[in-house]
Amino acid sequence: MKKITILGSTGSIGQQTLEVVEELHGQFEVLALTANSSIELLAEQINKFKPKYAVLMNDSLVNELKYKLSYNETQILTGLEGLIKVATLNEIDLLVNAVVGAIGVKPTLAAIRAGKDIALANKETLVTAGAIVMREAKDNDVKILPIDSEHNAIFQALQGEDRKAVKKIILTASGGPFRTIAADKLAEVTVAEALNHPNWNMGGKITIDSATLMNKGLEVIEAKWLFDLDYEQIDVVVHPQSIIHSLVEYKDHSILAELGLPDMKVPIQYALTYPSRNTNNLESLNLAKVGALTFEEPRKDLFPCLEYAYEAGRRGGTMPAVLNAANEIAVSKFLEGKIKFIDIPKLIKKVMSAHTVVDNPTLDQIIEADTWARLEAQKEGEKVC
Amino acid sequence: MKKITILGSTGSIGQQTLEVVEELHGQFEVLALTANSSIELLAEQINKFKPKYAVLMNDSLVNELKYKLSYNETQILTGLEGLIKVATLNEIDLLVNAVVGAIGVKPTLAAIRAGKDIALANKETLVTAGAIVMREAKDNDVKILPIDSEHNAIFQALQGEDRKAVKKIILTASGGPFRTIAADKLAEVTVAEALNHPNWNMGGKITIDSATLMNKGLEVIEAKWLFDLDYEQIDVVVHPQSIIHSLVEYKDHSILAELGLPDMKVPIQYALTYPSRNTNNLESLNLAKVGALTFEEPRKDLFPCLEYAYEAGRRGGTMPAVLNAANEIAVSKFLEGKIKFIDIPKLIKKVMSAHTVVDNPTLDQIIEADTWARLEAQKEGEKVC
Repeated sequence: MKKITILGSTGSIGQQTLEVVEELHGQFEVLALTANSSIELLAEQINKFKPKYAVLMNDSLVNELKYKLSYNETQILTGLEGLIKVATLNEIDLLVNAVVGAIGVKPTLAAIRAGKDIALANKETLVTAGAIVMREAKDNDVKILPIDSEHNAIFQALQGEDRKAVKKIILTASGGPFRTIAADKLAEVTVAEALNHPNWNMGGKITIDSATLMNKGLEVIEAKWLFDLDYEQIDVVVHPQSIIHSLVEYKDHSILAELGLPDMKVPIQYALTYPSRNTNNLESLNLAKVGALTFEEPRKDLFPCLEYAYEAGRRGGTMPAVLNAANEIAVSKFLEGKIKFIDIPKLIKKVMSAHTVVDNPTLDQIIEADTWARLEAQKEGEKVC
Repeated sequence: MKKITILGSTGSIGQQTLEVVEELHGQFEVLALTANSSIELLAEQINKFKPKYAVLMNDSLVNELKYKLSYNETQILTGLEGLIKVATLNEIDLLVNAVVGAIGVKPTLAAIRAGKDIALANKETLVTAGAIVMREAKDNDVKILPIDSEHNAIFQALQGEDRKAVKKIILTASGGPFRTIAADKLAEVTVAEALNHPNWNMGGKITIDSATLMNKGLEVIEAKWLFDLDYEQIDVVVHPQSIIHSLVEYKDHSILAELGLPDMKVPIQYALTYPSRNTNNLESLNLAKVGALTFEEPRKDLFPCLEYAYEAGRRGGTMPAVLNAANEIAVSKFLEGKIKFIDIPKLIKKVMSAHTVVDNPTLDQIIEADTWARLEAQKEGEKVC
């Protein structure tokens, strides 16, 4: 039985991870769950999965959480310390990091140093600290198993292959809800429209990132680190049906791709059970029923976040952390109705332009850049309002 | 340097194999070439590649061939004996079997018994004698590397995976030139129309087999043996662009596919250099440029050969050899203008119905069934005229 901790168990990926754990009954034991402030759901999960530990980031809600528990053996911890503790428990075999945001970085690094394999859904870990994380993973002989459908697809398409034979990878992007919008209409899109993703049912932050193509930009940076590639080896193609989850082109011009119906449970299960594959009750893809898979170039003029991510990645150092932090603030301001959709890239660009990059940064320097970028983005965001 | 024999070097696959050998200069030495009766081309190939041996099946043309040679060190052999000799040469590392027709079976088996790895383009080897060939390959620890783009795709998509995790495979079919034809027009199609394949530039026999879907049927039987599957695990989907060359669905519902521009040099090179991948000058697939990949169910009513192949495969024993032999005769009669396109499946069905199956046949019993089916098909074919 594999013993696991799930960071961010009340988020979209966290919930689906628990569904997979339930469906593969007997194969996993959940040792710890963590949440930010969704105490209702966390209580349900504790009552059902009976973990040894739970972490609630918002410590003012601990008593309210305890009141909702019918299972009372779970030790409730709080804060980053709590996250790090449950990420590094002696007994766990695998850390599932499904936290949203930069808070995911430190527990992941701690778990890597403790020799734990990581099933990684937290984008910020690799975007902000990819160089450090992958170096530590190598030094500690730890596997980083990507949960993101795109990276999971690449990971699958690399099995049994010589990494040196890779010519390039092609990340597919749904194109988001504004893929075909007239250029002059983008200024007026609403939050509700931006949250209406065509294929994937995901959290709010990542859904907006899909609409701006920043999600794909962050994935480009992640892919760079996960698969040890140059940015010239990473392409993006828009594929509205999200059936082909990504592709690897080898230097003999054979392309291997992973595909299937859009369901995050497939990559989650793969990361959990790797290197085995388990049966499940999900639906098979029927290509004749789907009919057509279409592809087009991303509209870089309308969705500049993708290029900003390439720029930040190529510049390196603390710049990707700044891109990411500025984007988090910009997206939350958009979700709060404080800035327009088209202000998101503008805000990011301004913060990037104002940043003095630190090369080969330590984790503390990355966090410092992150904090600086958040403040800078707040400041710039208020000017926009 | 890998030393190779190419059976059928003047055919479409044989010629492209030599082009690949030339492009990968210094990696391969061609020890033997063989042809049926294309002496002009065989002479060119001998003069260029300077093999130790060449086999000409039509021995009445040997003198004419010799007259065309500027390189005179090549020993010219004839007949099946010649094929078997060059397929089993001590020095060769790999036999490329690119012969068309049932003549390919015996040299392949001889090579397997001599411990040679096989790059296999000859369909009949596995269709007629799959059980024997795969058993011998296993016993002699010999690799069968499929050259056919579909099986090569499956083979690639299986690398690094546990065969027991395969749920099913999906072979793609272009659908041939009559994919969208009105049902009542099929009776009147001409040989020229049938030879006009939309994607692949191939030999005449295989092009007609593509138009009848028998090609896909034969591939279903081959796949059964190559990948040790049940017929229930083999699906066919029509994919007119021939970009996705085939797919493997695993039991976790991940699907791995190999794709690329339709160019037989990719699978040929893969089979030659396996398990390495080499760079080449072929064109990269640009999905945005392709725009759309479409899929539809095969029209089983119009193209019953596909179902006949499943039937023959499920019946087993000598029946697949009979299907194949009857098809060879039917296609050659169609190419000669002696029967109509829609008579091809009728002829095959009649011969299959008249056949008394031998279960677990020896190679001699398979050859006997093949001979019987050819005569029967000739006889039935004359009735049709």
